[in-house]
Amino acid sequence: MHSFPHLLLASKSPRRQQLLKDSGFNYTFVDIDADEVFPNHLKNEEVCMYLAQLKANHFNGEFGDSVLVTADTIVVINNEVINKPANAQEAFQMLSKLNGNMHEVYTGVCLKTANKERVFYQKSEVYFYPLSDNEIQYYIENYKPFDKSGAYGVQDWMGYVGVEKINGCFYNVMGFPLSKFYREIQNFISNP
Amino acid sequence: MHSFPHLLLASKSPRRQQLLKDSGFNYTFVDIDADEVFPNHLKNEEVCMYLAQLKANHFNGEFGDSVLVTADTIVVINNEVINKPANAQEAFQMLSKLNGNMHEVYTGVCLKTANKERVFYQKSEVYFYPLSDNEIQYYIENYKPFDKSGAYGVQDWMGYVGVEKINGCFYNVMGFPLSKFYREIQNFISNP
Repeated sequence: MHSFPHLLLASKSPRRQQLLKDSGFNYTFVDIDADEVFPNHLKNEEVCMYLAQLKANHFNGEFGDSVLVTADTIVVINNEVINKPANAQEAFQMLSKLNGNMHEVYTGVCLKTANKERVFYQKSEVYFYPLSDNEIQYYIENYKPFDKSGAYGVQDWMGYVGVEKINGCFYNVMGFPLSKFYREIQNFISNP
Repeated sequence: MHSFPHLLLASKSPRRQQLLKDSGFNYTFVDIDADEVFPNHLKNEEVCMYLAQLKANHFNGEFGDSVLVTADTIVVINNEVINKPANAQEAFQMLSKLNGNMHEVYTGVCLKTANKERVFYQKSEVYFYPLSDNEIQYYIENYKPFDKSGAYGVQDWMGYVGVEKINGCFYNVMGFPLSKFYREIQNFISNP
C-alpha cells in the first residue's frame, strides 16, 4: 500500500473530514479565512479551482512535511452558481430550482507544499425527481440544510428520496472527490 | 407528506434496513428462506426481479395491513452474474474482474400484499479505476467484503478510493433503489 503524507485540511465541512478519515488519511484541521469572491468571467470549473487556490494562498502557517489541502464545492444550474442558503426561504427557492431538473456539482481541490502546488477539479451531474412543495418543506424543516451548497445533502433524506441518478462521482456531490484525490496526491508527492 | 404503510422487510442486509429507517419508513424484519436459483434464459433485469418475486412467494406469514418488501441485488460484468464471495480468494478474483472496468448493478424489488403484487428493478453502472493487487489485498484483509455481491461496498473504502464514477442511482449500488422505491410504493398503495 501507498504511504501518504500528513495533510493540513483547510475545511470545516464535517463531511470532508469524515470521508478523508474513513479513507485512511491523517490530517490536522487548519483554519483559513478567505473571502470567497471570484471574477465574473470564470467558467464553472475555473470558479471552484480559483476558490480552492485562493484559500491555499491565504494559508500563513508552516507546511513542514505536510500537504495543505483546500477545496471548494459549487452547485450550478442553468449556468447559475448556487451557494449555501441563508435561511429557510432561500433553501426553498434553491430546492425549487433543482426540483425535477439536472444540476452540476463541481469541486475544486488545491494541493500545496512549501514549494509546489497542484489544482484540479471533478464534475458530477445530479438528476432530481419532481418533488412537491410539501416534500421540500418537510426536508427543510427536518434537515435544516443551511450549511450545504444547493441546500441539500446527497447523503441524507433528500439524496435518498429526491435524487433519481448521478452521472459521476457520488463523493464529489457529497463535497470531496475522494477517488480522484487519492490518485492526484500520489502523483503530487511522487513528482517533485 | 405522504403516509406510508408499515413494511414487512425480508432482507438481512444491514444496509437496506438502515437506508429504509433513515428514509422514515417503519418496518419489521421477516425471515424468508428461498433457494436463490433462477432459469438460465433470463436477462439480467429479469434475474433480479425473478429472485425478489421468488422470495415474496415464499412468505408464509400474515400480511395484515402491511406491505411485504423483498429485494435482490446482482452484479453483472461482461454478462456474467457475480454473487457474494465465499472466501478471500474468490473476493480477489471478483475484484480483479471489476478492476479498471465498468460493471452493472441491478436490484429487483417486489411489493406484495394479500391481494396484489408489483415488481420493478433499477440498474446502475459503476466504473472502477485501475487498482493494484496490493490495494485489492489491503481491502479484502481490512474490510472482509464476504456479505456483499461483487465483493465490495460502494459506501466503504472501495467506494471511496476505487470507484471513479457511477451512472445511475448510488443507493441502488449500495443495495436498495430508495428514490424509485419511494415512488413505486406510493403508486402501489394508491392504486388498488
